[in-house]
Amino acid sequence: MDPFHNELKKEFQLERMILFSDAVFAIAITLLVIEIKVPELAEEHFTEKELLKSLGHLMPKIVGFLISFFLIGNYWMVHHRLFGYVVNYNKRLLWINLLFLLSIVLMPFSTGIFGEYSTPQGLYLKTPLIIYVLNICFIGFMLYRLWSYISNPVNQLAEHLPHPALVRVAKIRALLVPAIFLLSIPVSFIEPPFLSRYVFLLVFPIMRIIQKRADKKLKFQPQS
Amino acid sequence: MDPFHNELKKEFQLERMILFSDAVFAIAITLLVIEIKVPELAEEHFTEKELLKSLGHLMPKIVGFLISFFLIGNYWMVHHRLFGYVVNYNKRLLWINLLFLLSIVLMPFSTGIFGEYSTPQGLYLKTPLIIYVLNICFIGFMLYRLWSYISNPVNQLAEHLPHPALVRVAKIRALLVPAIFLLSIPVSFIEPPFLSRYVFLLVFPIMRIIQKRADKKLKFQPQS
Amino acid sequence: MDPFHNELKKEFQLERMILFSDAVFAIAITLLVIEIKVPELAEEHFTEKELLKSLGHLMPKIVGFLISFFLIGNYWMVHHRLFGYVVNYNKRLLWINLLFLLSIVLMPFSTGIFGEYSTPQGLYLKTPLIIYVLNICFIGFMLYRLWSYISNPVNQLAEHLPHPALVRVAKIRALLVPAIFLLSIPVSFIEPPFLSRYVFLLVFPIMRIIQKRADKKLKFQPQS
Amino acid sequence: MDPFHNELKKEFQLERMILFSDAVFAIAITLLVIEIKVPELAEEHFTEKELLKSLGHLMPKIVGFLISFFLIGNYWMVHHRLFGYVVNYNKRLLWINLLFLLSIVLMPFSTGIFGEYSTPQGLYLKTPLIIYVLNICFIGFMLYRLWSYISNPVNQLAEHLPHPALVRVAKIRALLVPAIFLLSIPVSFIEPPFLSRYVFLLVFPIMRIIQKRADKKLKFQPQS
Repeated sequence: MDPFHNELKKEFQLERMILFSDAVFAIAITLLVIEIKVPELAEEHFTEKELLKSLGHLMPKIVGFLISFFLIGNYWMVHHRLFGYVVNYNKRLLWINLLFLLSIVLMPFSTGIFGEYSTPQGLYLKTPLIIYVLNICFIGFMLYRLWSYISNPVNQLAEHLPHPALVRVAKIRALLVPAIFLLSIPVSFIEPPFLSRYVFLLVFPIMRIIQKRADKKLKFQPQS
Repeated sequence: MDPFHNELKKEFQLERMILFSDAVFAIAITLLVIEIKVPELAEEHFTEKELLKSLGHLMPKIVGFLISFFLIGNYWMVHHRLFGYVVNYNKRLLWINLLFLLSIVLMPFSTGIFGEYSTPQGLYLKTPLIIYVLNICFIGFMLYRLWSYISNPVNQLAEHLPHPALVRVAKIRALLVPAIFLLSIPVSFIEPPFLSRYVFLLVFPIMRIIQKRADKKLKFQPQS
Repeated sequence: MDPFHNELKKEFQLERMILFSDAVFAIAITLLVIEIKVPELAEEHFTEKELLKSLGHLMPKIVGFLISFFLIGNYWMVHHRLFGYVVNYNKRLLWINLLFLLSIVLMPFSTGIFGEYSTPQGLYLKTPLIIYVLNICFIGFMLYRLWSYISNPVNQLAEHLPHPALVRVAKIRALLVPAIFLLSIPVSFIEPPFLSRYVFLLVFPIMRIIQKRADKKLKFQPQS
Repeated sequence: MDPFHNELKKEFQLERMILFSDAVFAIAITLLVIEIKVPELAEEHFTEKELLKSLGHLMPKIVGFLISFFLIGNYWMVHHRLFGYVVNYNKRLLWINLLFLLSIVLMPFSTGIFGEYSTPQGLYLKTPLIIYVLNICFIGFMLYRLWSYISNPVNQLAEHLPHPALVRVAKIRALLVPAIFLLSIPVSFIEPPFLSRYVFLLVFPIMRIIQKRADKKLKFQPQS
């Protein structure tokens, strides 16, 4: 086996880890929809009104599904961008990545609990919200670990990393998302209880602003 | 990292986005079958007649499954063809593609509702049909966005695109499928109500005709 | 885009079709296990005897699962071998392959019905067996179509195909498996009814014999 | 087709087997979470206490999920490392690998039974534990078969294998994990019955120690 071929094999091993992660992401993001069960009315209740009513009951689940879909989609993109710099791997990286995947795999479950208890009555319960937020914190923390471990030059895993200031932005952002979600817990004590759910929606514009600012400051090109 | 290697990395990043999309497509198309539950008779009803009766009740679900299977399969092929021209990516493309995948991921749910209420009694309900058609409209619109964004030379994403007239055909077709499905909504007000379901079947021959015409006019070779 | 790069793109498009098929195969083969539901006893029935009894009731489902697992696994291998010769693709091949995947995707459903009615009482029903056998026939026929279409030199899809005699063996075998399964239908009229289930088990040794004979005759090396 | 191209095709065929395995791994590891059903309380029981109580009932399932997640994750890594040496394949390897995948695919089912009967009452049952341990034994044995078959120079499947002493360590370890799990069966006869569950947790530290020792002795670099 010549060195060129050997290099190819190493690259394939790295790609395999990445494509395995992609498969886990793809399954987790698609399984989310399974939690939204089709409402099954008894035939004597087959009226437009009854159906719309049961679809209305599904609304909090659908909102929960959408939030989680965009979160997982966003985390996939960050994973995609981050591993764009990776040129090597080691056992520790495999484990950190596996723990990151664990945090993603738990999302259909925590989204399920979160959606199930987002009904008017369920909104007074703090536990579903706390479970969901803890899941996000777990993802955020593992992402922070991934960024730290990969960008650490000692580990010799990455090449062509962006400017250190941008790596710092990425690491801060990994922790900022959970911080915003954590905010929703104290907010959940304020009436009306559904306010806490709207805190989540702050995540997307805030992340956008941070990203744009960082992009502008350093004229960063994601694909270079 | 030499430029050749750098180029390879960019290509892998692009491939990763495509293979992630494939995984989502594959899971969505396979999950469709999960909505068709195996009929579970009580043991005292274990007769051929009873089983055939409950399989008969499954028929609308099976028809719904088949329509959605071929729709998703067809959309996968269009995605396959479209990304055959793509040689670069940017963040915006990742997002448009993610929204396109969202529209695909919703299909098992909307197909489920559509199938559940395609029974003789359920056919009088408009909501399941409307939900299903809206899902198709969402897919069609996102596909149109994908074609527009990728084929726009300003974005420098594609190479060797087919003749502009053919790109226009592809974009029109992306919107035509939802238009045919939308037709089924007024038709659903005509008796008998199952007529609206048959409008769907027009999609496949109409798309074939359009494709063949465009192919003939420009002698387009899909694999070149 | 130079011709070399162009060639690479075509190859990736082909690989994409193959990897999409693999994902569908992988999901279908893994979803099979979902039909085997964990027996949930009431707490007052938590005895070893009760649990073993309900696991005993699962046995026909487990046998059905195993038969389908090895069938799908086997069909994946044939697909793997067959597409090892493919160097080009066209739209028609995409469609034939999609129909082949449809026949695979239906397996968790038909295996579910087959397993559900393989209880002592259910064995007297012919419908579940017929549905299952029809699914196998559908797979076999599509596989035959794939072999015919790919091996037809007019289509210019394959290179380094095995000796025509071996292609013929492969095509016959694609139809032979359904033929053996069809045999189980007349056998199901003979008492005791579970005999029909054992006909299936003939498939694996018969296919082995045919393969070995063909291999010996032409000293065929699968990986060359 | 020139020899270079031919070589590429063989490599792709090998990669296809590996990526198919990855997809099965990814689906099995993600399906595990489906067994943990979201507790659905009646609306009159929407109290924090009731919800925490039903989440408490889920704890044994969650622990079972975590054990299986890390086991499958670990087996994926071993598969990843092992196939890093593989440069060729044959039909027999495809079959051994398929049987290995079967043992992985069964995990969501055996984990489900194991978790379902890990309640205080269920712990007195031996059957769920035995089923789970048998599944682990099956995985371990198939992994041992994979290592033996791939590392056997007669089969000409691998290149750059680690030092024979390390291959021996890997083979022993493949059998050691089931051995530790088997230990839990006699332990399950000792009061209190949940002790048997803790035996499992020995696996991870013991495997770590063995690995570290072997690594130190031979200064083995996993990525070289």
